[in-house]
Amino acid sequence: MRLNVELSKAYRLLNHGPTILVSARYNGKQNIMAAAWACALDFDPPKITVVIDKSAYTRELIEASTTFAINVPCVAQVDIVRKVGTTSGRDLVETDKFSEYGLETFSATEIDAPLLKGCVAWLECKLIPEPHNQNTYDLFIAEVVAAHADERVFSDGHWHFEGHDELRTIHHIAGGAFFATGVAIQA
Amino acid sequence: MRLNVELSKAYRLLNHGPTILVSARYNGKQNIMAAAWACALDFDPPKITVVIDKSAYTRELIEASTTFAINVPCVAQVDIVRKVGTTSGRDLVETDKFSEYGLETFSATEIDAPLLKGCVAWLECKLIPEPHNQNTYDLFIAEVVAAHADERVFSDGHWHFEGHDELRTIHHIAGGAFFATGVAIQA
Repeated sequence: MRLNVELSKAYRLLNHGPTILVSARYNGKQNIMAAAWACALDFDPPKITVVIDKSAYTRELIEASTTFAINVPCVAQVDIVRKVGTTSGRDLVETDKFSEYGLETFSATEIDAPLLKGCVAWLECKLIPEPHNQNTYDLFIAEVVAAHADERVFSDGHWHFEGHDELRTIHHIAGGAFFATGVAIQA
Repeated sequence: MRLNVELSKAYRLLNHGPTILVSARYNGKQNIMAAAWACALDFDPPKITVVIDKSAYTRELIEASTTFAINVPCVAQVDIVRKVGTTSGRDLVETDKFSEYGLETFSATEIDAPLLKGCVAWLECKLIPEPHNQNTYDLFIAEVVAAHADERVFSDGHWHFEGHDELRTIHHIAGGAFFATGVAIQA
C-alpha cells in the first residue's frame, strides 16, 4: 500500500542519497530517466535539487510543464533503472519508454507527471525557475508538493528495509554498478 | 594507504550519496561539520554542490577562505559524525572540534582545509561563488581540485567494500539513524 508522506518528512526519502528516476509529462508526451545527482535542499517546505543534462528529453518536458516527479526505485528494478538511464525517449517514435519497456504508472495527485509503479517512494515536484543554474550547471531546483511511499519500507517518517531486500533503495556508481542501501546503524 | 583519485573519477566518491563531513580553515581557525546534502554536479572538471546552513561556523570559514574539504566518513566513525553534526565549533572557546574530540587530521595538497584521518575519501574543493544560491538556498557550488581515497576500499575508480564492513560509507536519515552502504549489484 502507498501512503502519503507528511511534507515536513519528505526530505527523508532522499536524505540517504539514493539514485532516482525523473519522470515528466507535457502535452501528451511523457518520459522517464535515471539520475544519480538528486539531493534534498530544504526541509519545510521541502525543496530538492536535481542535475539534468541538456541532451535529456525529460528536461524538455520539465521546462515546458514546470513539474516533474522523483521516483525512488529499488533493488528489484536495477535493470529498469539501467535501461531508462541509457536510452533516450527522443529516439522512440510513436511510442515512449513506458510502453517500450512495459512500465506501469499511476497518477500523481498535485502534478501531471506519471509515477512509476514498483518504486518505493515518489516526490511530486514543482520547478522553481532558476535560469542561471539551469543553463550554467544543468541544476534544477524544485519544491516538493506531495510525497508518497510504499508502507512496507517507509512509514512514520522512517525507512525500515529489514525483511524486504528486494525493496531496498539503490545507489549508482557508474556503468550499471549499484549498491543497495545496507544495514541500519544508530549513532 | 591513501591514493590520489583521478579528477575525472572523483564524482564516483559521492555518486552513491554518502553523508559527508565538511572541513575548512581560515586564519588559524578550523572547523568540521556533518552534511547529508552533498551531491556531484559535474564530471570533468568535477563539481559538487553542498548545502550549508547560515548558522554553521564552517560556513564562515568557507566564505572567508573560499575553499573547503569534503571528507567521506565510514561506519567506524558514526559517533564522530553524529558528534560534529550536532555541536557548533562557535561554542568552543580556545579550542576546536578537532582537539575537543581528539580528531586527527592531515594536510590537503591544493587547499588549506584539514582532512580528517579515518575517513575513506577526501575531495579538496574551491568555491565557485554564487551569491544568489548561497543566500537564497544555502547552496554552495565548488570545483574539486584534488581527490584521495583509502585504497583498501576504493581503487581504479571503483569502491570495493567487501571484507571491510567498518570502512563502508554511511548514509544519514535523521536523528543519528544511518544506513551503511550495502551489497554491490550489477545491472
